[in-house]
Amino acid sequence: MNDIILLAHGSGGKLSHDLIQKRLLPSLANPMLNKLDDSAIFEASGHLAFTTDSYVVSPIFFPGGDIGKLAVCGTVNDLSMNGAKPLYLSLSLIVEEGFSLSELDCIVRSIKAAAEEAEVNIITGDTKVVNQGQADKLFINTSGIGVTPFGIDISGANARAGDKIILSGTIGDHGIAVMSQREELKFEVPVESDCAPLNKLVAQMLNSSPRIHCLRDPTRGGLATTLNEFAQQSNIGITIEENKIPIKEGVKAACELLGFDPVYVANEGKLVAVVEPVDADKILAQMKQNNYGRDAAIIGEVTNEHSRRVAMRTKLGHSRIVDMLSGELLPRIC
Amino acid sequence: MNDIILLAHGSGGKLSHDLIQKRLLPSLANPMLNKLDDSAIFEASGHLAFTTDSYVVSPIFFPGGDIGKLAVCGTVNDLSMNGAKPLYLSLSLIVEEGFSLSELDCIVRSIKAAAEEAEVNIITGDTKVVNQGQADKLFINTSGIGVTPFGIDISGANARAGDKIILSGTIGDHGIAVMSQREELKFEVPVESDCAPLNKLVAQMLNSSPRIHCLRDPTRGGLATTLNEFAQQSNIGITIEENKIPIKEGVKAACELLGFDPVYVANEGKLVAVVEPVDADKILAQMKQNNYGRDAAIIGEVTNEHSRRVAMRTKLGHSRIVDMLSGELLPRIC
Repeated sequence: MNDIILLAHGSGGKLSHDLIQKRLLPSLANPMLNKLDDSAIFEASGHLAFTTDSYVVSPIFFPGGDIGKLAVCGTVNDLSMNGAKPLYLSLSLIVEEGFSLSELDCIVRSIKAAAEEAEVNIITGDTKVVNQGQADKLFINTSGIGVTPFGIDISGANARAGDKIILSGTIGDHGIAVMSQREELKFEVPVESDCAPLNKLVAQMLNSSPRIHCLRDPTRGGLATTLNEFAQQSNIGITIEENKIPIKEGVKAACELLGFDPVYVANEGKLVAVVEPVDADKILAQMKQNNYGRDAAIIGEVTNEHSRRVAMRTKLGHSRIVDMLSGELLPRIC
Repeated sequence: MNDIILLAHGSGGKLSHDLIQKRLLPSLANPMLNKLDDSAIFEASGHLAFTTDSYVVSPIFFPGGDIGKLAVCGTVNDLSMNGAKPLYLSLSLIVEEGFSLSELDCIVRSIKAAAEEAEVNIITGDTKVVNQGQADKLFINTSGIGVTPFGIDISGANARAGDKIILSGTIGDHGIAVMSQREELKFEVPVESDCAPLNKLVAQMLNSSPRIHCLRDPTRGGLATTLNEFAQQSNIGITIEENKIPIKEGVKAACELLGFDPVYVANEGKLVAVVEPVDADKILAQMKQNNYGRDAAIIGEVTNEHSRRVAMRTKLGHSRIVDMLSGELLPRIC
């Protein structure tokens, strides 16, 4: 009874205050959060970025991460994909009655570690508890605020014919890692999630060239869905080459076994950039300096042909249209 | 099958895009949200306020409101309680597979109406779908950003001996309304939730006097818990008078029947203000001009006695300590 979440932890009363004081503040403390007022006050000015994501990944612990690390990295990345420097996060927990407090402690430690790596502070939060059976263990929402440097205008709508498409590394790692943990599949080569904060990689890219038109992290729906979003938002066509797309042997084998196309499998530590052709090699070289970009590759380009569609030249030399994900490949992947 | 949420609505692929384009954007559209990038960009400067809340109320429809109205009002109010003018909200949905799309439409309409009343825009969002049985219908997270006027410093830590305590209206309406809907209780006098955005009331109060020290909306844990938070954060004592606390007959009767103490029952459209004594009558008069403050009353004062505790003089003339809520009175009230 002492190691589990009770309904009273979500009452707003004594046990709620205990949970905050004993389990959350010791790891996450900072002057803004410590005030514990209804909202946190911070100073900022300029173009600010605001984003939100709820995380419902199952299982909550997986090779390479857990729901806490994912909740920080995912929101840090969504800010970074507009070129913003992430500054502050909120943290809101929906916990199922009976959830283990020691598991919660692990997750809070992951949140702390990821926030430290990304250099963001959690400055406001909320905890709700629902009766057993009314949620599955733990859902986390993080929202984030960042500041966008002057002159940066990155949007899915900015791709232009001739632009090069850069992918920051191997695809499908997160989806296959979560899937293998969920289904207790053992692969010869174990696959770890790529879950990582990409804000410093993006800062380095922007430092090397401001001429980055689009950035997006291909999470749910994978690389194919992100490229289709760019094609539709920007009203252009995209051509990619299958043999340029980096993919780990373990992921390739798992996808073959499971019948998945890796271009639809979720990533949590990768980005796709659409950049001016003159700067593509320079940006690529810069990316390779960063641990999270060392496998980066130019995988294709933007074209005026086949508008609003993505075409892939396969390894066999054919060309096929790669549509947005239709249906659901892997529920609760993030 | 056409009127329910499928797992594929949360895939990030085609049905996710359909849901956003057909169900969410038509009601919530604004230039920042419409861009549909990973984060929304806005301009601001100064002291900004940031808050988050997840809403898990059950049932999702109740007399006087629904989870959508609550999710907007609750977050607008958390910003207002630091004296901030709410500007932007995020909206994140966790939906159970099989949830009714027409019920979702109703809730989106409530969100739109509440956001219009509060004059805030929803500029970024997220939708996740979990398998049937892994969540209860619909959970909503809203986070919010506001701007705090120069010179305003409102915090639960700012109460000083001699300050007056103002309550903006009747207590317990929200808790009893949700409870009666949940348990299908019929009371002689039906009780409606007080769920409302209080930002304009707060703006009027600040206009009439900047000497407002603390503001908080007594939600989970009720009036008693909020006053105990002030006493602890400010290291002072608080004395209130039971017969000054406004309470509706229907709520009083329901509380007697259910064995609840109304000072612990949740409110969603009320605030408690701690103000300098010289300005108390002026602020009170101003509050009574606003529809959400017409039953406002001075219910007590801050004292150097019984530090960090709240004492209530009862109708019978005794004095008793009113502690913070201990245990759980009503799970999933907000």
